[in-house]
Order: sequence, then structure tokens, then C-alpha cells
Amino acid sequence: MEKNVDTMEKVVSLCKRRGFVFQGSDIYGGLKGTWDFGPLGVTLNNNIKREWWKMFVEGREDIYGIDAAILMNAKVWETSGHVAGFFDPLVEDVETGERFRADHLLKDLGINADGLSLTEIDNLIIEHKVLSPKGNKVSAARQFNMMFESRIGATAGDEGKVYLRPETAQGMFVNFKNVLDSMSPKMPFGLAQIGKAFRNEIAPREFVFRVREFEQMEIEYFVKEEQWREEFEKLRLAIQKWHDHIGLAPENIREYEVPDNDLAHYSKRTIDFEYNYPGKGFDELAGFAYRTNHDLKAHMNASGVSMEYIEPDGTRYVPHVLEPSFGVGRAFMAILCEAYTEDEMGGEVRTYLKLPKHLAPYKVAVSPLLKNKPALVEKARSVFSVLKETFGTVAWDDNGNVGKRYRRQDEIGTPHCVTIDFDTLGEEKPELKDTVTVRDRDTGQQTRVAIAELVSYLK
Amino acid sequence: MEKNVDTMEKVVSLCKRRGFVFQGSDIYGGLKGTWDFGPLGVTLNNNIKREWWKMFVEGREDIYGIDAAILMNAKVWETSGHVAGFFDPLVEDVETGERFRADHLLKDLGINADGLSLTEIDNLIIEHKVLSPKGNKVSAARQFNMMFESRIGATAGDEGKVYLRPETAQGMFVNFKNVLDSMSPKMPFGLAQIGKAFRNEIAPREFVFRVREFEQMEIEYFVKEEQWREEFEKLRLAIQKWHDHIGLAPENIREYEVPDNDLAHYSKRTIDFEYNYPGKGFDELAGFAYRTNHDLKAHMNASGVSMEYIEPDGTRYVPHVLEPSFGVGRAFMAILCEAYTEDEMGGEVRTYLKLPKHLAPYKVAVSPLLKNKPALVEKARSVFSVLKETFGTVAWDDNGNVGKRYRRQDEIGTPHCVTIDFDTLGEEKPELKDTVTVRDRDTGQQTRVAIAELVSYLK
Repeated sequence: MEKNVDTMEKVVSLCKRRGFVFQGSDIYGGLKGTWDFGPLGVTLNNNIKREWWKMFVEGREDIYGIDAAILMNAKVWETSGHVAGFFDPLVEDVETGERFRADHLLKDLGINADGLSLTEIDNLIIEHKVLSPKGNKVSAARQFNMMFESRIGATAGDEGKVYLRPETAQGMFVNFKNVLDSMSPKMPFGLAQIGKAFRNEIAPREFVFRVREFEQMEIEYFVKEEQWREEFEKLRLAIQKWHDHIGLAPENIREYEVPDNDLAHYSKRTIDFEYNYPGKGFDELAGFAYRTNHDLKAHMNASGVSMEYIEPDGTRYVPHVLEPSFGVGRAFMAILCEAYTEDEMGGEVRTYLKLPKHLAPYKVAVSPLLKNKPALVEKARSVFSVLKETFGTVAWDDNGNVGKRYRRQDEIGTPHCVTIDFDTLGEEKPELKDTVTVRDRDTGQQTRVAIAELVSYLK
Repeated sequence: MEKNVDTMEKVVSLCKRRGFVFQGSDIYGGLKGTWDFGPLGVTLNNNIKREWWKMFVEGREDIYGIDAAILMNAKVWETSGHVAGFFDPLVEDVETGERFRADHLLKDLGINADGLSLTEIDNLIIEHKVLSPKGNKVSAARQFNMMFESRIGATAGDEGKVYLRPETAQGMFVNFKNVLDSMSPKMPFGLAQIGKAFRNEIAPREFVFRVREFEQMEIEYFVKEEQWREEFEKLRLAIQKWHDHIGLAPENIREYEVPDNDLAHYSKRTIDFEYNYPGKGFDELAGFAYRTNHDLKAHMNASGVSMEYIEPDGTRYVPHVLEPSFGVGRAFMAILCEAYTEDEMGGEVRTYLKLPKHLAPYKVAVSPLLKNKPALVEKARSVFSVLKETFGTVAWDDNGNVGKRYRRQDEIGTPHCVTIDFDTLGEEKPELKDTVTVRDRDTGQQTRVAIAELVSYLK
């Protein structure tokens, strides 16, 4: 099937209808840029995070997990440059007072304002007679810091000012020394973290793609300066392997080499891993930056704490860092878009999620052919118990007829449906006693499997 | 061993030294009430959360997971009563301007001020001539809201005010209807959530016990009003089973029935599950409250969205709710205190963490007897690879002599150490070829096990 802007709308609708994602604070009209994950969404998210942790932390010897607090000392963000430089340029509608991203208004006119100064933006606004979306004149652009601010403790004034972290990365830099002291890692090594981050986006949009509260999976991988190219290539392959592992087709992934003149001042190389979102085209999925030793040096200077690594031979240096950075929400969105499929089955259009088995919210669904036959139900319950013990997430589905159940499970990506019928009871055909029908999500094919073989068949 | 206030200090020190917990924003002098979990701490925490999710969500059919945003519409907290009523009474040192919890100052004098009005507190302060910890007079008490406030979007004024959630519970209440619509659950059923919550404690203290940022594992279990007593007993047993599963001795757990006059106005029964923290005595570990249908009714009235459950026969009602609530940090702290053990081994005092196997950060450690013998190292690496493939979290330890390695692994609770020695290579005793020494953490006993049997032996 060809995927387009309709596909995205169908995915969003499926997400709400089937309990993957709801608007945050839904019953109160929502809170823009926040999303709540429902029973199936949290399971898919947990599967993504678990697989990532297995691949990048447990599956390796050189990467250590950490979990730093969301609230950090404001000095962290002064040192990282976020207090002074994490801004969006905003203009105000002079009639309504509403604020809009100046770069977005220009982009709508086909003008790229990335990296321009406020004066340059103002000049473009005048030159192109830019109006607000309401059709009114706009004010001069001003900078708006994207960090959420709060206040800690009961002190008044600026003393208690804190920010919600806009990235998990700094939690790893500030713990670099603690990990050296407690774990004695050998170079090269990395720190990995999964956790929430917050950005006060003025225009959150596109479902879970650009939001104000999101979850990151990040690695800071520390290397000797002269190793960076070699380790960059290894991690780049690891990122490719990850995207393969979560079922994204290679043709839907693009590696965008950020040109030298667009790189952050501390970065010597950055690759954006982009996914081909239906109806939207290639856009950010993950990032991979070589950040030199900019961050560790800045924290060393600001805190006075040494960030040097000491080799067994006594050599000392502040390591350089490679940063693979993934958004859980963007992976979630890409996985669902990739999995969303419509085909024809039994003369009807059917919708199914072709999710990799290790990501599907339910591994298998179990049904009695009829729910008002106690013998069928009892047998189905016993099969269900065994499968649930083994696979954890197993659905019990006894609503409607078998065909409807298949469609329902297809739509949420359950790889197999197991049906217990009269043959299972062995009433007419003794040779089929204690066998069940296992139906495959992708092909619709049905196979007769002995209950005793079921666990290994499904594995 | 008898555990006392020294035990707690030793646990805290071990946590920092061995990479379990570091002070938040450590290199900048910290941020009070925040903690960062290091490589071993995040693994222990992940194990706690995974086991909880397996027991309460995956292991049951009646509880659905969700993951709501930390930032919620302010109306949620107006409706829940937190905007109007989530306060601590504070007094100010009239000389220094520092603020202190009035109830804590009174408690230090043996006076319980729980639930008293500001006037009653002020009268007690005057009557008992209460001074600040600095020895100065204090101001009259005033209320201080414990929610962290922030501002969302680019609007000025009160419009964009948001709070960091002080509990995960409300995320489940406001999604009740979404779950009904998407999952069609049968009563009774529950929603479960693991996530961060934030409280602006004036006096964070006692390690990870009272903090400003913490992680909760909560369930809202919805029942018909007439079922509540029966379901309360079932969940109470489930909570007991959980505490047993994480290795807490029954004699260190106390169920405190909150007396009727101390109950929140909407609660008809609350049990505090308390743990006997060394040197601190029994204090909160988990809570279990019957909250009637107070919350759902309040949100139904405030939002206009129906929170009624409709039975197949058409009966409608707003369900009542039972709320088991667990703190990840408190479980973490209780587990470490319970596990911390000193005994004598080989004529020396040794320290070890007697952690249940399913919680230990490393399942097993693998060592070559000597690290400068390539044949030993190579063999040990092959054993390590097999175990890592199976168990995920496996330590490689080749530093120092075998005795030191054992002590090091004891201290972080690794249940088994596997050592590859010359006998493994079969050089002198062919009958021992391809066997290894497996040493048990708790007994110190060493057993010779064939490599081929190792995985099943360790399982």
C-alpha cells in the first residue's frame, strides 16, 4: 500500500480508539503538547525501551546506565549554554497579543530563517510584509527560552530557580566523575539514560512528533580524541542495527549529514537519522553528534571538578564524546507508521499493524470459539493461563465472532490468535483432541497446533 | 547482626562508593532533595519496577498500565484539591529570613501538629516559645503549596500556569473514560502507572526517603461500592505478597491502620505499610487507601465528562476506588537496608548485600584466576559471553586477587562468582577440565560446576 497523509490520520485515530495514545488532560480540553499513553501504548513504549536497553546497555560491556533527576541545579544549564542560548524567535500579533514562531511564519513563505539573528529576522519580516496567521501585523521578534522554569524550596528571589531538563544528556556529563570513581570503566565507554525531558515549544504539533514533554534514550560515549572517527563508525552501525531491530525499512531511513556550516559550534560532525513519515516525508527520528570535549571541559571549568580520565600509564585527558540520541515518541510514531498496513482479506479491506513480534503489545490472543459453551471456555482459560505465564502480555478475547476477533487483534498488531473449538475437545475427531487453531496476523493462515507444542510454536 | 543508625550511614556510603546513588547535580554542590541513580542503582530500580509491573500488570488480567504526562492541565489540580489544599505550614526566622516547617519545629518538642489550623499552630508556637533552629524568634505560620509551578506556552499571566504532578494518581482518574472507551474492561478493574512525581518539600531529608523528585508505582482499582471490603482484602494480600517478593522480612513490615479521625475526608479506610528502617524505626513504605468515588465524581462534575461505568444490564454508577501506592525510592531504600549484612568470613568482617536474586544488579560475576594468563582470560571470556547472553547483567571482574573480587561482588549483592582457573583448562587434573568454581554470596561456599551445566545451575 502507498502511505500518505491519510495514513497518518488513520494511525492517530487508531491510537486513540484502541488505547495507544490519548491527548494529555483530555477531559479538560487537553494540554497542548502533552500526550498520555494508554494500556497498549505503554506496553509498546515499554517494549521499545526494554529492547533499546538490552541492545545498548545490557548487551554491551562498555555502556553503563544511569538515571539522573529531571530537576537539576540551574548552574548545569548555565554551563551547558541553555540559559543563554536555548531560544526560539517569537513575534506577537499586535492585535490579539498571540505569539508565533517567527521562523515558522517565514518558512511558510519558503524562507529558511535557521540560525539568523533577530535583526535579520526582523528585516525579512519587513521586507516580505509578514503577517500573523490572523492576518494582523506582528511585533519585532524577541527570543523566548524553551526551558520550563520553576522554583525550588521556600526561598524568594532568583535563588531557588530551577529548570526542567530540556535534554537528558547533561545528567550524564555531570555524573561522569561519579561513574569514573565508582565503576573504574576502561576507555572507550559510555553512559546511557532513558528519561523525560521538557521543552516549552510554542507550536507543538504533528501528534507525538513535536511535544512539550517527551522521553529520550541517549548515550554519551567517551573516547580519546584520536579514536573518534573509528568509534563514530561503530556507533553509526549500532544505530542502523537498532532501526533494523525495531522493524523500520532501510528505504524509509535517511542519514542526513549536517553540513559543516550548520553544525553547532562545538560539533565536528552530526548525522540526523530521518524517517519517512507518511504524508510528512523525511524528518527527525534520531540524532548522532560528535560533540568534541566541549561539555566535559565546560563543566570542569565551571564546577572545578576534574573531568580527566587517567590511563593506567598515567596519561590524563578530558575525553571527547559521541552522542547517539533517540526519542521514544518518535520511534513509537515511526514504528506505528511502518507497521500500519491495509490489504484485502476475505473480500474486505482489513487494517493491521505489522509490528515485529518483540514489540507487539500482546504476543498472542486466546479465544474460545463460543463464549456460552462452558467446556470451550474452560479449555481456553487453561490455554490462556499457560501462555500468560510464559509470555506475560496475552489477550483474552471472547467478544463477537471469530472473524471480528481476528480483525480486532490485527488492528493492534497481535501476531497470533489461538482459538479453542470443538475439535480441541476431541468430540468428533479424536485425532484433533488437544489441538488448537493458530492464526497468523500477516498471512491470515490458520495452522492446527497441539497445545503441548503451542509455547514452542509461538516462540 | 543488629541494625541501627550506623547501618543506614553505611548503606548511604556504599551507595555512593559503589555507584548506586549520587547526590543530584553533585559537582555543583547538589540540588537538595534530588538524587541521581548510578549504574548499579538504575539496574536495581529497573528490577524493582519490572517485578512490580510483572506482578501487578502483566501477571493479572484486571489491571491495565498507563503512562500519563507529568505536565497536566491546571484544572486537574484544582479539581483534585491540590491547588487549594496541598500545603505545609511554614514559619520564617525573623532574623535570617529562612523558612522552616512549623509542624517539624513542634514535633522536635514532642508536639504533634498534624491537621492543626494555622491559628492553632501559632498558639502552640507562642505557648511553647518556639524558636527557629538558629535560635531566633519565628514569624506566624503561613501555608506553602508543595506543588512545583511552571508556565507553558508563550502567554503571559495566569493562563499558562501548570504544575508538576505531585502524584501519579490523577493521571489515572482523568483517563478513566478513555480506558473504558478503548479497552471495554469488566469490573472490577484497575489502572497502574509508574512515573515521576514532584513535591516541593521544605525539608528534604533521610537519603532517598523524603525527596523533591521521586518515582511512584500506583494502582487505582475500580470497584462497585458494595465490593470494596472484599477487594480491599484481596489487594491487601497482594501488597503483602509484593513485599515478600522483594525480600522484606515480615517482622520489618507493620500495617498501620490510620484511625478514623486521621483519615482524609474522602477516605473510609487507609493502611500505611511501614518498614522498620534501621536507626529510624517504622516509617512509610507504601500506602493503601479506599478513596470512595470522591475523585471520579469530582472530575465528572468539573469536566462534564461522564465517569459512569455501564454494566451489561444497563446499570450505571460511578465506581469506588482502592489505591495501593508505592514509592520506588522507598522500596529501594528498604531493600538495601534489609539486604545489608555484616558477618565474619575468613577471620575478617565482611559486608554483603543479601539481595533476592531477581533484584541483584549483577546476576553473576566472571573472573579468570589471573589476568595475565591469556589461556585463562580467553576461557573466562567465552564463559562470560554465554552467561551475558543468558542473564544480561553479568560482571567481568579481573582486578586484584580472587578474595578481593569476592568481597567486591559481595558488597554489591552479586549472588554468584564464577572463577576460571588452571583446572578449568584441565592441565593437571583432566577430570576437572571445563569445570569452574562457583562461589555462593551468602554462604561463601564454593562448588565445582561443569561449564555445560552452568546456566541451569545459576538459574
